[in-house]
Amino acid sequence: IVSKLPAVGTTIFSQMSQLAAEQQAINLSQGFPDFAADSQLLAALARHSSAGLNQYAPMPGVPLLLQQIAALTARCYGRTLDESREITVTSGATEALFVAIQMLVQPGDEVLLFDPAYDSYSPAIQLAGGVPVHLRLEAPDYRVDWQQVATRLTPRTKLIIVNSPHNPTGMVFSHADWLALQHLVTQHGLYCLSDEVYEHMVYDAAPRLSANCFAELAARSVIVSSFGKTFHVTGWKLGYAVAPAALMTEFRKIHQYVTFSSFTPAQYAIAEMLREQPQQVTELAGFYQHKRDQFRQALSGSRFSLLPCQGTYFQLLDYSAIAPELDDLSFCRYLTIEHKVAAIPLSVFYQHGSSARIIRLCFAKQDTTLAQAAEVLCRL
Amino acid sequence: IVSKLPAVGTTIFSQMSQLAAEQQAINLSQGFPDFAADSQLLAALARHSSAGLNQYAPMPGVPLLLQQIAALTARCYGRTLDESREITVTSGATEALFVAIQMLVQPGDEVLLFDPAYDSYSPAIQLAGGVPVHLRLEAPDYRVDWQQVATRLTPRTKLIIVNSPHNPTGMVFSHADWLALQHLVTQHGLYCLSDEVYEHMVYDAAPRLSANCFAELAARSVIVSSFGKTFHVTGWKLGYAVAPAALMTEFRKIHQYVTFSSFTPAQYAIAEMLREQPQQVTELAGFYQHKRDQFRQALSGSRFSLLPCQGTYFQLLDYSAIAPELDDLSFCRYLTIEHKVAAIPLSVFYQHGSSARIIRLCFAKQDTTLAQAAEVLCRL
Ligand SMILES: CSCCC(=O)C(=O)O
Ligand SMILES: CSCCC(=O)C(=O)O
Repeated sequence: IVSKLPAVGTTIFSQMSQLAAEQQAINLSQGFPDFAADSQLLAALARHSSAGLNQYAPMPGVPLLLQQIAALTARCYGRTLDESREITVTSGATEALFVAIQMLVQPGDEVLLFDPAYDSYSPAIQLAGGVPVHLRLEAPDYRVDWQQVATRLTPRTKLIIVNSPHNPTGMVFSHADWLALQHLVTQHGLYCLSDEVYEHMVYDAAPRLSANCFAELAARSVIVSSFGKTFHVTGWKLGYAVAPAALMTEFRKIHQYVTFSSFTPAQYAIAEMLREQPQQVTELAGFYQHKRDQFRQALSGSRFSLLPCQGTYFQLLDYSAIAPELDDLSFCRYLTIEHKVAAIPLSVFYQHGSSARIIRLCFAKQDTTLAQAAEVLCRL
Repeated sequence: IVSKLPAVGTTIFSQMSQLAAEQQAINLSQGFPDFAADSQLLAALARHSSAGLNQYAPMPGVPLLLQQIAALTARCYGRTLDESREITVTSGATEALFVAIQMLVQPGDEVLLFDPAYDSYSPAIQLAGGVPVHLRLEAPDYRVDWQQVATRLTPRTKLIIVNSPHNPTGMVFSHADWLALQHLVTQHGLYCLSDEVYEHMVYDAAPRLSANCFAELAARSVIVSSFGKTFHVTGWKLGYAVAPAALMTEFRKIHQYVTFSSFTPAQYAIAEMLREQPQQVTELAGFYQHKRDQFRQALSGSRFSLLPCQGTYFQLLDYSAIAPELDDLSFCRYLTIEHKVAAIPLSVFYQHGSSARIIRLCFAKQDTTLAQAAEVLCRL
């Protein structure tokens, strides 16, 4: 059999989580919380399942959840969605990203994306027969140079993928970034895939922005989010996509043959939380900002240098003062095996790698976990 | 945007379930049980979720579940699987089918499949750039003519998709069918995608056969099954694929970017059931055979003519003695709106439709539901 993805191995997230488990290391690699989800959420799951809601959900999602997503989008961004035609619940944001790319990318189409990039974008583009066009963002700020982006457009450019707040760098688009993106997309008739899975983790009182806030951009965008991230249940694999009805019709045609629908009781449980505990979403930024600040403070005495973190639950560290001779994958392995703290090397997020001495740590962890990890890291 | 699936609308299952709901009809259309799943299963879901198993499962599936799938395969079919390399848990059988097709089909490859066919196969083939080659099976037995199949091979034939027990017809492959399939696949270097989601619903003491039973076939097959069907929780969207390690490596490369992993607590709950209640799987055939027999008996006084049902939880009915002037979609709509019983027209499972006067009814329903429906149907 001819491999469709010859260059792809097992994702770095699985690799590092497995190494962390083998080494009994503190796992700050793969992005997931090590603390319990809200007990009301878990009770709701049990209740809806016991009540018999265990058969196929409607293909676009449970109506109660679609309503709550529409309400959330209105509250956060002032955008009014047609809940029956512009929202689809998916089996994690990963499925939403995959389906959106399958829908938008025809063989030969070029897709602009920014390195460091989340690892699923490029394989999904390749499977659709598209051509990923990687633009590099550079440390320490990883800001997009929109004029440079414009120079990379060709008649085959179909789609641009953006991700703000940005995994792995923590960069958050400014208002000017969104306007520049909107200009690019509308001027050149592109589509936009806006991966906003960390949308509720934006720090330092920065304005809460999204493709949802820019009408002309939203008219040509698929916007993706994740309840796994927002409600601390990454293993629930529940996300959603928002798009104008004409795009959503095509999205659903594909979604219905990729997974058809997602875990039914979880859809009811999340809908209940959104209705009864809406403040949990708005309080998330404060919750994680506290962890970020604590973690950064604890690392301030270390020989790592801390890069900015405006959003997400990831912190980048430059280790060049500690082990400049080690590439970042080697350094992550060394850190996991010798010091029992697992991290993700930044270079894996680049098409052609990176020689920067930078690693990513996930701070979606209990305060004690973060303190323990920081103590180890300060000893290096 | 150019549609990737111009000919596709909303699946018939969603359409008919929605019409059934609007009409408050007894819904024998979309295949799902109307009775409660086992309380131990639901309790296990709640327990594992409360215990904190809510983060990403490993990408190939929770090891405990992989072990139980290997044990089940050994018990049912005598095949020994390498649980770490030959099994992957998926977000429903639908995801497994989609990923297998993405993995195996290159642009221009031809894929043999049998009409009436489950509706996801052909769109998945088209999205991979492949060419579906439909072979028609004919009422009342819907048996495969393997000699005719051989005449449809070309140098571009890559894959054959089979489905036994067969949805929608209830046909089950004989030993001779499996041998003929194995011969075809090995002689011509094809691959086989064996959709066995109804594997545990085979009636009348027929031998329990699977691609797993035929070593040379299994060496070139992806075999797909569904816990949703087996444990009466179709909304849990939990299935799996079995394939030789070399194929599974490629399968996982794609799976990791389609959904990455599936609902974690459900994986633990199903693993627990397979370990503690293994007889539930073996007793399933008896459970559904009873329903089939009861439903057929209740319909014996009707003017419908009953087609054979060797497996699955579907019964085909020929209504030509009742309304020969109505095509099957019209008859299903008439039945739902006027008589409050929803069914699925058979013609939608054919590439070019079918003029047969046949509908599919799902008998995965409480005895009282089936009796009520039969009473209505007998009045026609
Ligand atoms: C699907 S595993 C990856 C989790 C994640 O989003 C990350 O660690 O970046
Ligand atoms: C995914 S909805 C379809 C359910 C089913 O398998 C059927 O009714 O045939």
